[in-house]
Amino acid sequence: MDHIPPLRIDGLQYANWSEKIFGQLRAGGVDAIHVTIAYHESFRETVLNFERWNRWFEQYPDLIMKGLWASDIDRARTTGRTAVFFGFQNPSPMEDDIGLIEILHTLGARFMQLTYNNQSLLATGCYEEYDAGITRMGRQVIAEMNRVGLVIDMSHSGDRSTIEAAEMSTRPITITHANPHAWHPALRNKRDEVIRAVTSRGGMLGFSLYPHHLKGGTACTLESFCQMIADAAAAYGADRLGIGTDLCQDQPDSVVEWMRVGRWSKQIDYGEGSAAMPGFPPMPSWFQDNRDFGTIEQGLRDVGMTDHEVAGIMGGNWYRFFAENFGGQP
Amino acid sequence: MDHIPPLRIDGLQYANWSEKIFGQLRAGGVDAIHVTIAYHESFRETVLNFERWNRWFEQYPDLIMKGLWASDIDRARTTGRTAVFFGFQNPSPMEDDIGLIEILHTLGARFMQLTYNNQSLLATGCYEEYDAGITRMGRQVIAEMNRVGLVIDMSHSGDRSTIEAAEMSTRPITITHANPHAWHPALRNKRDEVIRAVTSRGGMLGFSLYPHHLKGGTACTLESFCQMIADAAAAYGADRLGIGTDLCQDQPDSVVEWMRVGRWSKQIDYGEGSAAMPGFPPMPSWFQDNRDFGTIEQGLRDVGMTDHEVAGIMGGNWYRFFAENFGGQP
Repeated sequence: MDHIPPLRIDGLQYANWSEKIFGQLRAGGVDAIHVTIAYHESFRETVLNFERWNRWFEQYPDLIMKGLWASDIDRARTTGRTAVFFGFQNPSPMEDDIGLIEILHTLGARFMQLTYNNQSLLATGCYEEYDAGITRMGRQVIAEMNRVGLVIDMSHSGDRSTIEAAEMSTRPITITHANPHAWHPALRNKRDEVIRAVTSRGGMLGFSLYPHHLKGGTACTLESFCQMIADAAAAYGADRLGIGTDLCQDQPDSVVEWMRVGRWSKQIDYGEGSAAMPGFPPMPSWFQDNRDFGTIEQGLRDVGMTDHEVAGIMGGNWYRFFAENFGGQP
Repeated sequence: MDHIPPLRIDGLQYANWSEKIFGQLRAGGVDAIHVTIAYHESFRETVLNFERWNRWFEQYPDLIMKGLWASDIDRARTTGRTAVFFGFQNPSPMEDDIGLIEILHTLGARFMQLTYNNQSLLATGCYEEYDAGITRMGRQVIAEMNRVGLVIDMSHSGDRSTIEAAEMSTRPITITHANPHAWHPALRNKRDEVIRAVTSRGGMLGFSLYPHHLKGGTACTLESFCQMIADAAAAYGADRLGIGTDLCQDQPDSVVEWMRVGRWSKQIDYGEGSAAMPGFPPMPSWFQDNRDFGTIEQGLRDVGMTDHEVAGIMGGNWYRFFAENFGGQP
């Protein structure tokens, strides 16, 4: 290893963005992030979110830049900035219009979940009782996403839908933010056969720091988290793994309620929370914000992973995945 | 001159697009066209028009390609295709949202008229009785268009609005399709001081073949048209001039009615036509469609223009203008 620090790429965040957080991304040496810009938004509402980011790029040109291609990460690194890539946790931005997939890709979208917890037009969410798999429209959408280079993300989908998507897609797919169910049996964490369906076809799993996904929740230890990653590397290959913190920094609890309920229900749905714990759970002490990526990096070394493996998991693997999957079908 | 034919670029068309017309663009050696994709469309409707073009690019990859930058014209030429650049004849696609300017530019918009005949939120159209000039919002929009590289087109604007736009804009502006009023005093043709305000600041005038803009209408002679161009070259400089045919090939008359009336009136408005001649007028015999660009090229030589001047007017000047004005403010 020379003196250039390894790439640091976060596979998912949904912070309440501010100059403070952009500064923390720089302080943490984060070269690129995938940020969620739609949970339940319509096309027009999603465009407003692209507009908001355009203003931030104009306001903070020394801290952040728009990310469209892996090569933008090189440019961000050279100029001391963080490249911001966009994604959706629901297919709501494309509404019922397959033509919007290319439009949204042109605007900068690079990831789209086929479902967010519930049944969508495309597939079944992980909170539904029965998963009927990829729909008729879902098959069309997968092919179009493959064609233009919009990456399929199944983080919030059911097992059957996820496995079918991995099989149907002609390009590798992702679970950007979840952990192995075997380590912590949360509903959102993924069973072995699901992770294997994704990673065995070149897809990626990003490890989540969202406390509901962690063994012991907020009290999860760095060592347990890093050992879980080392075990996953042994099972699925270290080069199929990355980080996807799911960091929702500085968000008020009203936002987690919006994430869960959107406009689809008049009743409260606690999702991974509960009536006793309806809001965002506190993050683990060793990962409070973007300045703590070095702690994870050191933690991975401390459980015996090689420098090469650590460099891949901290960013090199996402970089390769971005480079291969954000453009038109080869 | 070597054996590479001069560039051919058309500064405005609104045809009823088909494989036949795409083939005629190739037969006519047209390297690039600016096509109108909105007259009265809202943002969402304009996106549907972008989507329709995406399908055509997918269907006819050997004939056409999306044009974003002047360098795409080189690529089109090398690969024997026509590069298609997009524009709006009305600011309706940006609605009342200045953030949509950058969004539309990202999607590929490169020209936007501040008005289409009527008063808009931004400026006054050429059919209004009184032209109050650029509005408060218009000033903001001009600055934002300048910033992102969306070219201001005043073809359908009033004289005062056009002159003010030319003065306020920090980048050159255009009249993509009109002729000198002195040659043919149609309402849509432009007075000397208007053309001068645009061309003296590096802007461009594209000469229209729409019969209502021609001396003698459909019966206008090639020689008269070309002599008018030669005279304009003497008055404004040959390098500020191009072609903007306004070709509306294969459109039914219902389309010219839509162009004129949109949704803004319940009454018929004949625009440049009349109750006796409500539809599209027939094109001159010497310019029926895209295969006839060579006829104009020869006509310009026949009135004594130099090869260098002709090459500029047929495409070289638009190329230079595209190269300088489609990107972010230098």
